[in-house]
Amino acid sequence: MKNRIVTISREFGSGGHIIGKKVAENLEIPCYDSELIEKIAQESGFAPSFIQEAGEYASDESMIPAFSARALGPTAQDLLWRVQQKIIIGLAEKHPCVIVGRCADYILREKAECLRVFIHANMEYRAKRIVETYGEQPETPEQRIRDKDKRRAAYYCFYTEMKWGYAQNYHICLESGVIGIDACVNVIQRLY
Amino acid sequence: MKNRIVTISREFGSGGHIIGKKVAENLEIPCYDSELIEKIAQESGFAPSFIQEAGEYASDESMIPAFSARALGPTAQDLLWRVQQKIIIGLAEKHPCVIVGRCADYILREKAECLRVFIHANMEYRAKRIVETYGEQPETPEQRIRDKDKRRAAYYCFYTEMKWGYAQNYHICLESGVIGIDACVNVIQRLY
Repeated sequence: MKNRIVTISREFGSGGHIIGKKVAENLEIPCYDSELIEKIAQESGFAPSFIQEAGEYASDESMIPAFSARALGPTAQDLLWRVQQKIIIGLAEKHPCVIVGRCADYILREKAECLRVFIHANMEYRAKRIVETYGEQPETPEQRIRDKDKRRAAYYCFYTEMKWGYAQNYHICLESGVIGIDACVNVIQRLY
Repeated sequence: MKNRIVTISREFGSGGHIIGKKVAENLEIPCYDSELIEKIAQESGFAPSFIQEAGEYASDESMIPAFSARALGPTAQDLLWRVQQKIIIGLAEKHPCVIVGRCADYILREKAECLRVFIHANMEYRAKRIVETYGEQPETPEQRIRDKDKRRAAYYCFYTEMKWGYAQNYHICLESGVIGIDACVNVIQRLY
């Protein structure tokens, strides 16, 4: 039997990371989020800061130049995508786990028995959370969220050809701002 | 305090109706689904069969003629929309309840404290269910589902200006085919 995996896709600031960690803790299985970045860095030679950004976000506010650069062959982002894919498939073959982000839902669609989760939240809740978590920055929290959302959706759409945030892609979608982090953890854990 | 309402939007064949009924039974509150059609019929003079179709689906395989007919003033569908809106708001003001379909999530967005649920399921599961529930018909179940989905999405988009099936519109979205009807009922009930 295939390993059972929980994949968590999430909007920036919605608490997907902490939800993934808590679900994994309660289920006593590993959670891969920043750990994934280290593994990818070891295997690929890319810097963790590059992986953090380029492994989930379209490379620029203006997406077109990044994509048209492919006329000259695969970009660094394309190479990173291949390494990410390989590592995520390897982990899923090894043991049950929670994987946060990095299109794991798509990468594992035919490779593992996944519970595919999407965490989103209203703007007000996310704005408050990102200031608490990452501090103030020159842009408003709303601007930061809109930019991240846009580039994450573009990345997902480009590499997976699926629409990001579309309910039909997932088994369960939760609004963490209204439902609360702990209730989200509870629901996911029970369904697993 | 406003009444707490559960609104259930659902894909055709996903079991949203039965999930709504069971949630309402367990919570001991009324469920409005076909009951809504009778109420609308009484108030509007429209026939139940017209309300069943025109209150949730764009009127025709080709949507354009139906919409351009509005050059001559509101269509029967527009009048039905207004009656539906009025009745749904009235019910939500009266008591806590479950309302299935009819864009209740959108209609009540500023009128009541709602738990907004979306139920969807994979094509195979839905095809099996609609044959069991409604019997065989000249078209394949897949054709019937695709037609219903398309017209329901068009209706929703036209009257609400929101994208149907987009996770961010709801507090919780569940894939009933994978999760199972009873587990869906359980999750909704606990979150309420």
